[in-house]
Amino acid sequence: MENLDPIFKPKSIAIVGASRDPKAIGHQCVKNLIDSGYEGKIYPVNPKADEVAGLKCYHSVLDIPDKVDIALIVVPAKLVPAVTEECGKKGVKGLVIIASGFSEVGREDLEREVVDIAHKYGMRILGPNVVGIMNNPLHMNASFGPYLPYPGKAAMISQSGALLIAMDARTWVDKVGISHMISIGNMADLDFGDLINYFNKDEDTNVISLYIEGVKDGRKFLNACKNSKKPIIALKAGTSKRGAAAAASHTGSLAGSTKIYEAAFKQGHVVWAENLDALFDETMALALQKPMRGDNLLIITNGGGVGVLATDAAEKYGVPIKDAPDDLKLLMFKHMPEFGNPKNPVDLTGMADRPEYEGSIRDALKHDWVDGVVVLYCETSFTDPQNIAEGIYKAYKDSGVDKPIAVSLVGGERSVKAGEWLIENGIPYYNSPHAAVRALAALRTYGRYLEKASKEFVPYKVNKEKVEAIIGKAKACGRSLLTEPEAKEVFAAYGLPIPKGKMARNPEEAVKIARAVEYPVVMKIVSPNIVHKSDAGGVKVNIKNDDEVRKAFQEIIENAERYDPHAEIMGVYVQHMEPWGTETIIGSINDSQFGPTVMFGLGGIFVEILKDVTFRIAPFSKDEALDMVKEINGYGILKGARGEKPKDIEAIAEAVSRLSQLVWDFRDVIKEVDANPVIVYEKGLSVVDARIILKTGKSTKVTPKPLDKCS
Amino acid sequence: MENLDPIFKPKSIAIVGASRDPKAIGHQCVKNLIDSGYEGKIYPVNPKADEVAGLKCYHSVLDIPDKVDIALIVVPAKLVPAVTEECGKKGVKGLVIIASGFSEVGREDLEREVVDIAHKYGMRILGPNVVGIMNNPLHMNASFGPYLPYPGKAAMISQSGALLIAMDARTWVDKVGISHMISIGNMADLDFGDLINYFNKDEDTNVISLYIEGVKDGRKFLNACKNSKKPIIALKAGTSKRGAAAAASHTGSLAGSTKIYEAAFKQGHVVWAENLDALFDETMALALQKPMRGDNLLIITNGGGVGVLATDAAEKYGVPIKDAPDDLKLLMFKHMPEFGNPKNPVDLTGMADRPEYEGSIRDALKHDWVDGVVVLYCETSFTDPQNIAEGIYKAYKDSGVDKPIAVSLVGGERSVKAGEWLIENGIPYYNSPHAAVRALAALRTYGRYLEKASKEFVPYKVNKEKVEAIIGKAKACGRSLLTEPEAKEVFAAYGLPIPKGKMARNPEEAVKIARAVEYPVVMKIVSPNIVHKSDAGGVKVNIKNDDEVRKAFQEIIENAERYDPHAEIMGVYVQHMEPWGTETIIGSINDSQFGPTVMFGLGGIFVEILKDVTFRIAPFSKDEALDMVKEINGYGILKGARGEKPKDIEAIAEAVSRLSQLVWDFRDVIKEVDANPVIVYEKGLSVVDARIILKTGKSTKVTPKPLDKCS
Repeated sequence: MENLDPIFKPKSIAIVGASRDPKAIGHQCVKNLIDSGYEGKIYPVNPKADEVAGLKCYHSVLDIPDKVDIALIVVPAKLVPAVTEECGKKGVKGLVIIASGFSEVGREDLEREVVDIAHKYGMRILGPNVVGIMNNPLHMNASFGPYLPYPGKAAMISQSGALLIAMDARTWVDKVGISHMISIGNMADLDFGDLINYFNKDEDTNVISLYIEGVKDGRKFLNACKNSKKPIIALKAGTSKRGAAAAASHTGSLAGSTKIYEAAFKQGHVVWAENLDALFDETMALALQKPMRGDNLLIITNGGGVGVLATDAAEKYGVPIKDAPDDLKLLMFKHMPEFGNPKNPVDLTGMADRPEYEGSIRDALKHDWVDGVVVLYCETSFTDPQNIAEGIYKAYKDSGVDKPIAVSLVGGERSVKAGEWLIENGIPYYNSPHAAVRALAALRTYGRYLEKASKEFVPYKVNKEKVEAIIGKAKACGRSLLTEPEAKEVFAAYGLPIPKGKMARNPEEAVKIARAVEYPVVMKIVSPNIVHKSDAGGVKVNIKNDDEVRKAFQEIIENAERYDPHAEIMGVYVQHMEPWGTETIIGSINDSQFGPTVMFGLGGIFVEILKDVTFRIAPFSKDEALDMVKEINGYGILKGARGEKPKDIEAIAEAVSRLSQLVWDFRDVIKEVDANPVIVYEKGLSVVDARIILKTGKSTKVTPKPLDKCS
Repeated sequence: MENLDPIFKPKSIAIVGASRDPKAIGHQCVKNLIDSGYEGKIYPVNPKADEVAGLKCYHSVLDIPDKVDIALIVVPAKLVPAVTEECGKKGVKGLVIIASGFSEVGREDLEREVVDIAHKYGMRILGPNVVGIMNNPLHMNASFGPYLPYPGKAAMISQSGALLIAMDARTWVDKVGISHMISIGNMADLDFGDLINYFNKDEDTNVISLYIEGVKDGRKFLNACKNSKKPIIALKAGTSKRGAAAAASHTGSLAGSTKIYEAAFKQGHVVWAENLDALFDETMALALQKPMRGDNLLIITNGGGVGVLATDAAEKYGVPIKDAPDDLKLLMFKHMPEFGNPKNPVDLTGMADRPEYEGSIRDALKHDWVDGVVVLYCETSFTDPQNIAEGIYKAYKDSGVDKPIAVSLVGGERSVKAGEWLIENGIPYYNSPHAAVRALAALRTYGRYLEKASKEFVPYKVNKEKVEAIIGKAKACGRSLLTEPEAKEVFAAYGLPIPKGKMARNPEEAVKIARAVEYPVVMKIVSPNIVHKSDAGGVKVNIKNDDEVRKAFQEIIENAERYDPHAEIMGVYVQHMEPWGTETIIGSINDSQFGPTVMFGLGGIFVEILKDVTFRIAPFSKDEALDMVKEINGYGILKGARGEKPKDIEAIAEAVSRLSQLVWDFRDVIKEVDANPVIVYEKGLSVVDARIILKTGKSTKVTPKPLDKCS
């Protein structure tokens, strides 16, 4: 991978568009670099100035006597191409284009031009439309944000410039420690994927924290996340319908479906932040603490009430509280008065002071059963929050374990001060119980990601050539919709079970097929012009004998001819009628950002009314598919509801994984797949109906060539 | 209603158990009263002291020369009865029993004794096991909490003492203004209902804010809420399964089902706070701002990113953002540069300073379409948050409207200070966009409650006598389970549609009934001993003619006799087989806190797997029932899914409301009702199967008397 150090750790910076006007951004950028204590070289550039903010100013970047690593570009958009050209000639490594007026206002052309010039010279671009780069270890504020963020270990990357400046300020209030704060802007060149890859290797950073409106290259983003050795947390804006539209209009980025981002985050092991507070709170926890390596969360409190609130939060955030083992209870009981409660939550009672906290936390952290601890403290009149905080810290240090801990001190200014002291000493503090629990839940989410054996997708042995042939033929005929027999063959070639069946061209052939596939059978019209077969009277079910087959054949053909006299009729598909089971759906869309993406859900009302579906980016393993099956709300039905036996969940997972291979292999030609219903049994499943739509430059309503020339 | 002013606004206070030891609670209570500036009389009482905290100490409350309004009781639990007796003799009006060691540790007997003594003298009790009472307007800290809360208009009542003290401190950090802070403790006498009634009339209070673990008298609570003219907000602890158990063990209170509390909150017009932060944030908004009287929320921002986050939050919290009308957009466009966005969210752009905020907010608030405004501000280097805040305040004042507004200033210390200034000037401020939106959503929730025409339940004309007779007969026979024919008659008597049907005692009677109710019919065994009729082979469906009826009759009787040779068999119920429709369930339980409570949901997997059900406390109107139908996830199915016609939602609502009347009228005898399935059609519905279980002192497994003596 390319080394981006010259961009993010530059030794010399030119500010092209440096200004003498203290209110101008071109002035602030120079001043901020000086004020932040940056020790590299600073070169203001302005054709009309000889000095800016006390520094010598050059009339052109070409006049600078030394090497220049990066240039902050603060000139009007229309001048950026010329400046880029000059920077290229100068041998600048990277451009931080603060200037706006590019794709975010519809000027994709200008943006493209600038990128092309930069790439000609091997330069990378951050932006355009950015605030800049803040690097705490280097004391480098290369931005028009007023000051560096609160120092720490999180690299924070924001797609919104205004929010970045506001978050910068807020880090000082919340004491969320930041190594780098990067404004990513329009992502004309460097994007989330590049920055994740970079900060994954940055030694000053141990968590990557993102504010995302929309990624441009979903695959690149996903792969960067998958490869990251550090936790990544993201706040995705635009999760509501209208929010997505607003996000799109804001940066010109396409904000994809929330469900697909959820899938990408799961597959990329990204922790999802539910809102801005959560982003801050959980970033802090991920930066300061180790991942939680098991599900056993112990709550230690001096107030029953906050203990209950934390217990509620633990269930909500996916780490439900469990009973502590008896020996742990006995240990805890040593640190409380007789009327205390050694169960989980451990209630030290309102009498608890430092010794009770310190002793119980130390014993808890050292106990094998405990995977993580949330400490709750309600401020009281007879205890000193600072003393409690120091007890918590000492217990944590003394325990010598790397289990995570989070603390909520509920109270006034004294508690806030004590909490800040905890943060400075590496222990995340929050003012409400649910926030502490949510932070530990984030550490658990990341822990679970780590535990999930990295089961990479291993392709199944499939008959790819056959699918190529089928699709090739359809394309040759100008068809974008495969016929049902074709779609079934495609599925079969990728190992998805389909009912026995074959197309008949006349009644007697139909009878022969019906006998071969075994009665009862279903018969369906095969015509590239008839999409809605039932509407056309083109489907007959539960056909039990030869005579019924002959009759059905005639009726189907007649109905189809009546329905659309111009329809090309290829024949009638005769298929064994599968027994009843549980209806599911497996589908796929080709997402504009993430490419082929597979959906799974229960059929009928579950998908139509309850939208109970889940997605993953293709391709993915059977294990990943198993997670999908288990996360739908209707999973209980597959496990066996209302006295029914459990359904073959393994078979579903394999089918979903195989489909993910199909749509990945044919990502350039398949637009959409819909296997609906897929009937699942106690053993096995069957794709009863299937539709495959191909990508086409033309509308899908093209008139197909005469069939005889294509079949 | 009784006047509780002497208790909550006392002119004189005795502290029984006043102590010379500065660390003792009995000392702190005296000291806190003095320090807080209380201007009434303070009488320390301690048989062994002559002076406490500089005040004359009396050896008994009987020695106090003047009248005593309330006594804080800080003596050990075992001494409380004697002290109570003395206070009674003295003519004390109310006791604030700070002492613990009562029902919360299993000493219900002692608690009962104290209440009995108090009531003998006409005294009311707050507690036991409380922190005390804090009254800001009176400068009265009658508690062992260290200081009075931040002054304001919210009466905050907490069931947890430790949390109360912590919240007291936190009000100073969050600037949430409090009129009264009350620790409610074990609620041996005064409970949530009493306090809500009291603060509803208190002129210093304009919102009632509750931390609830479990109410004791659900009905009283509900009625107090319904009668409140002021907004009520509550944080209910114990919403998770384990949290409920923890809450129960904590105060000894029964924490009922979350779904039932949700019902009570809706019916009582109580705003539900999702966590402690929400309780604080929304209490502030409800205290400072007017309810939002329509759904049109306008967001004004200087950052697209926070605008998107607020848009997401608005959808999540139930006030989805809508398009602003064109004339409003034109108005907004006046306050932004050309590249601003006048749509909703209104993006003033990062260039916005005070004039843009002030102008746009003023115009927005004055515009008819706007019902409420959320203002977002990302701190920038060139704007002063204080100046922005003053602009917001001026616009709000100038607009002269009473529409609600909430502000999020995202930034550092400067923004926090400016936000605090806003709060002091009556405008709620938050540091993140979602919190501001959530606060305005709370104002909208309350606004919706106000709009809901107070449609009181008006009883239907029903045949109550008939139900009394049926139930009377069953009880006389020692039966706790009504037979199906009985249950159906009960339903019919309350106007719920049932299929035509009657019990037959022999095959020929069955044939006669079958002809009368019309074929096809369903036949079911009638026996008080056979609960699971299908398991006993006691149900036959789709019986189409006389011969089948005769055969079914015999088989059912034989099966039943084989299943349980000792079962008393009353006959076979012959019922018209209703056509297929949408399966729903209407049920009722007799909740320990709220009494008869009605459930509605879709049948089958919807209730069993998805738990898609909703509750209301009985009785309630058809309008309330309509809300129930609309709030289940599967409502789309009733509206007409998959090409089906809409189902008769009005009929469902009426049936649910009628059932609520039934279980209310017979609340002392009916334990549980289960109408499952209730088949709903395009027009009308039919209760196809029904079960009614009666309350019984004895086990429900009692042997019934011989049937011949009962029928």
